[in-house]
Amino acid sequence: MEKKYVVGIDIGGQTSKIGVVNAEGEILSRVVIRSDVYGEDANAFIAALAEAVKQLIKECGKEGEIKGVGVGAPNGNYYTGEIAKAPNLKWAAKEPVPFAKLLSEGLDGLPVTLTNDANAAAVGEMTYGAARGMKDFIMITLGTGVGSGIVIDGKVVYGHDGFAGELGHTTVHPGGRMCGCGKAGCLEAYCSATGVARTAEEWLTKTDEPSLLRSYEKITAKDVNDCAMQGDQMAIRIFNFTGRLLGESLANFIAFSAPEAIVLFGGLARNKNFLTEPILRAMNANVLPRWKDKVKLVYTELKESDAAILGASALAWD
Amino acid sequence: MEKKYVVGIDIGGQTSKIGVVNAEGEILSRVVIRSDVYGEDANAFIAALAEAVKQLIKECGKEGEIKGVGVGAPNGNYYTGEIAKAPNLKWAAKEPVPFAKLLSEGLDGLPVTLTNDANAAAVGEMTYGAARGMKDFIMITLGTGVGSGIVIDGKVVYGHDGFAGELGHTTVHPGGRMCGCGKAGCLEAYCSATGVARTAEEWLTKTDEPSLLRSYEKITAKDVNDCAMQGDQMAIRIFNFTGRLLGESLANFIAFSAPEAIVLFGGLARNKNFLTEPILRAMNANVLPRWKDKVKLVYTELKESDAAILGASALAWD
Repeated sequence: MEKKYVVGIDIGGQTSKIGVVNAEGEILSRVVIRSDVYGEDANAFIAALAEAVKQLIKECGKEGEIKGVGVGAPNGNYYTGEIAKAPNLKWAAKEPVPFAKLLSEGLDGLPVTLTNDANAAAVGEMTYGAARGMKDFIMITLGTGVGSGIVIDGKVVYGHDGFAGELGHTTVHPGGRMCGCGKAGCLEAYCSATGVARTAEEWLTKTDEPSLLRSYEKITAKDVNDCAMQGDQMAIRIFNFTGRLLGESLANFIAFSAPEAIVLFGGLARNKNFLTEPILRAMNANVLPRWKDKVKLVYTELKESDAAILGASALAWD
Repeated sequence: MEKKYVVGIDIGGQTSKIGVVNAEGEILSRVVIRSDVYGEDANAFIAALAEAVKQLIKECGKEGEIKGVGVGAPNGNYYTGEIAKAPNLKWAAKEPVPFAKLLSEGLDGLPVTLTNDANAAAVGEMTYGAARGMKDFIMITLGTGVGSGIVIDGKVVYGHDGFAGELGHTTVHPGGRMCGCGKAGCLEAYCSATGVARTAEEWLTKTDEPSLLRSYEKITAKDVNDCAMQGDQMAIRIFNFTGRLLGESLANFIAFSAPEAIVLFGGLARNKNFLTEPILRAMNANVLPRWKDKVKLVYTELKESDAAILGASALAWD
């Protein structure tokens, strides 16, 4: 019997999302399981995941009709099928976990393909979202951190070791703010949700300027957005600053791969009213004349969880 | 009859080099013609070039045995076959010249493939030089300007419009020195031969520090090298500074495409005794831990003119 369905899995630090997907990219059935209750025990997590996948396939009556499983996970390596040094996944924070192999064994030999979460989202966007029909684009995920998935000539860029596309850790401010990775001045230290909150805290400490932001105890990027919506000048300037640094970085990425579009994705990308203009201004001021006003800036057209599940599932067709 | 030879052409501002190449990558015969005596008359230059190519093929007795012609030229566009806005080529400084089409007509219909000079050199290095056997590397040409050819999964990256790989115009020093392209702080403004000379001039003006460099009227990168060879401290520090900025940029490029190696090429790359150490130090200080001391820094193994001719000729086999 021809196998007409695939499974897509999006592994996150707190939860993992599983979906059964048909050839049209519709998620027929889905389930969410916890990823954070297994401590450092990778085997226990993978066993629970395999069980949940089997259960879901059974519930939607597609047993024997699944072609394969695609997985997007932080630090997932497409070449080796391993997850390693993923700070947000306790069970894969240190030594490499042969994830694809173990999950395949737990699923009675179903083929499992792994990639990182940002790459999976990029494939999802290319297949079903804002990058449909594009062969060259760069997807930037603006969440707790800054991730990226780079597509060149219709293919995700993996590089020599499978870890290409770490654009969150390019330097946007030499000698600047320390990043969680141990380097100074990374894009992620400024243009992630945490980066926006850090900017707010720094600016509030440095000046006496009145701002609605002073009423929060622990500021989040969402608080900055709420204040900006109410016309708070400092909050608006924080987005201007964030957008400018992101735009300057995007200009460098454009010089690298001359994409048709930049696709923004993730929680922080929801603040597009405040970010779009400063991003475009800085981006176009820092590219060669041939790219000025030529490269599109678009926002995801998929729900965040859908993009990752769909993108991961698309890997399973090949 | 099977066609066993190709022609490679390297178009430069002053001269253009033509070679007849066999399947083993040997240049059987070569000739150099002037490119700078035709003013803005593209047709006249292309007619002279076609004539020189025909003559060369005739001289080495390969008439009827040529499979095609590959050309590397500044701003050469692989997709359109055009050269446009090439400041160093007067006959192609403004409007697009349909170079591949015109040269093919001048050669009685021989297929002509065009790419930019840095991409051609990267292909040459991959096929016959320091990047043999590599599928993922970035070639940086350090000449009057800074060019680049990016190879991912064995293929040159052209991008959406055919102009990918302008790494000389990524920003290495935000708000820094003006570049010839009109932007501030470009890599090319610091890490080209002209950039090195500018650094020397700036530093000599700013301080009274004694230096052998003060004996030159108009300093070139070669002068800086000569002085460094004699132990001149300022000259050595100029290379340290240049190497550090280049290394910081390379770290960003590594985060993009995770290459196996960076290949340095061009006149300035000859100063490897002074550049290698500061480049590696800055590069390894600015990459994620997974790439520290992992990405090779290698220097071209081909003569400059050979790399471009061979790389261009390799295009003609496809």
